[in-house]
Amino acid sequence: MNDLATAALPATPQRPACHADEWLAICALYADYAAALDARELDLWPGFFTEDCIYKLQSRENFDRGWPLATLAFESRGMLQDRVYAAKDTLFHDPYHQRHIVGLPRLLARTAPGWRCEANLLVMRTRRDCLPETLFVGRTLDHVVHTPEGLRLAERLCIFDNDLLPNSIVDPI
Amino acid sequence: MNDLATAALPATPQRPACHADEWLAICALYADYAAALDARELDLWPGFFTEDCIYKLQSRENFDRGWPLATLAFESRGMLQDRVYAAKDTLFHDPYHQRHIVGLPRLLARTAPGWRCEANLLVMRTRRDCLPETLFVGRTLDHVVHTPEGLRLAERLCIFDNDLLPNSIVDPI
Amino acid sequence: MNDLATAALPATPQRPACHADEWLAICALYADYAAALDARELDLWPGFFTEDCIYKLQSRENFDRGWPLATLAFESRGMLQDRVYAAKDTLFHDPYHQRHIVGLPRLLARTAPGWRCEANLLVMRTRRDCLPETLFVGRTLDHVVHTPEGLRLAERLCIFDNDLLPNSIVDPI
Repeated sequence: MNDLATAALPATPQRPACHADEWLAICALYADYAAALDARELDLWPGFFTEDCIYKLQSRENFDRGWPLATLAFESRGMLQDRVYAAKDTLFHDPYHQRHIVGLPRLLARTAPGWRCEANLLVMRTRRDCLPETLFVGRTLDHVVHTPEGLRLAERLCIFDNDLLPNSIVDPI
Repeated sequence: MNDLATAALPATPQRPACHADEWLAICALYADYAAALDARELDLWPGFFTEDCIYKLQSRENFDRGWPLATLAFESRGMLQDRVYAAKDTLFHDPYHQRHIVGLPRLLARTAPGWRCEANLLVMRTRRDCLPETLFVGRTLDHVVHTPEGLRLAERLCIFDNDLLPNSIVDPI
Repeated sequence: MNDLATAALPATPQRPACHADEWLAICALYADYAAALDARELDLWPGFFTEDCIYKLQSRENFDRGWPLATLAFESRGMLQDRVYAAKDTLFHDPYHQRHIVGLPRLLARTAPGWRCEANLLVMRTRRDCLPETLFVGRTLDHVVHTPEGLRLAERLCIFDNDLLPNSIVDPI
């Protein structure tokens, strides 16, 4: 052992106190969100967000460097609804199923209205007569807030490690 | 914002109240079940079910349309034991390992004896000298019930999105 | 039903009592560990361990047979720091990202200082302009202990089902 060992000790960040019920509510939000998309109930999707909200689908490279370019970027629930309309009614594409595998949620900071939190995410895509493919590998970085209707997403950044397959992101992640 | 936004608001279903300890017990059941199969301790498998039980392995397409055809369908613990006997002693196949990655459980409804719940599931298959393959992408839709011996599965439907690889489902999912 | 059914009943092992807060703390340790490696903050890695610790990366075949051969084997935090130095500064390799998808933790036994526990693990590797690849399929088998600084790993065995890709395990799993 040397001094480096001691220097490295503050490895795990000081974790904000969280009540078990609160953690479970965040898990439920994440699982409900995933289930709605996996069942392709796209009309439910905007309802997981607050009226003013941010939703972005962005590459890890751009996110890490602070570059603004995002594959998708929406700033209100109304814009999410427009996207749902596009995905359901105007985009022609090979049909596919999504399946979200959400990792253990990680609480980063308590905020006045809720929590900054994140979770690793793997989304598999399945098309008829094809082997399942990895559609998304990365994480969601979220601001979850309490509302009278329950927990909602004020912000969700979907940050993908992988180069996405062209033409393939029709439905929201 | 428009009226649609309000109309879409009941996005997250009314979630039944659940005590943290109960949620963790369901997590433990799911994790124990996965561990038994991943270790290929098949003799343990029937013990996760109640005496009268339903186990089905069914494609998403058939499930969603209400079609009865299932890849596997058993209706009692005795039938599960027959399957274990078949998998261990009578089916000849290329040996492989399973690895279950279980997503966050999602509670759907409280029932008199327990819970209707589900979880997304990814099962990887590994064979000697081969790259890992995706064996199952989908979810389990369960009825978990309290028994004197602890939580057990009264029903487990394993619903797969993917076209399964022929000849490959020897061990239970 | 026959006698076999009864014989098979002790399927789920007697589960040690665990407080919800303790379970969540283990989840948080697992998620923080994964996040540090996925962000390639390798300097944080040794700090997740106790001063005297065991870290091994070993094939399932060797582990199950009790064979000692391991791909990596370290026995102190200082050795982990050496590995970090190697991974960051001396090994030349094609850069890649890791993404850990950690399954539901499973508590095996309470010990005087903490818990024996495990979790299934899938690690995806992403390289520029390549499809995501499965780097690791298996589980971590851990001894998690209480310390004045919080939960730490006194032992972590990373046991992989898959034949690993040659030359690819540069960063710790």
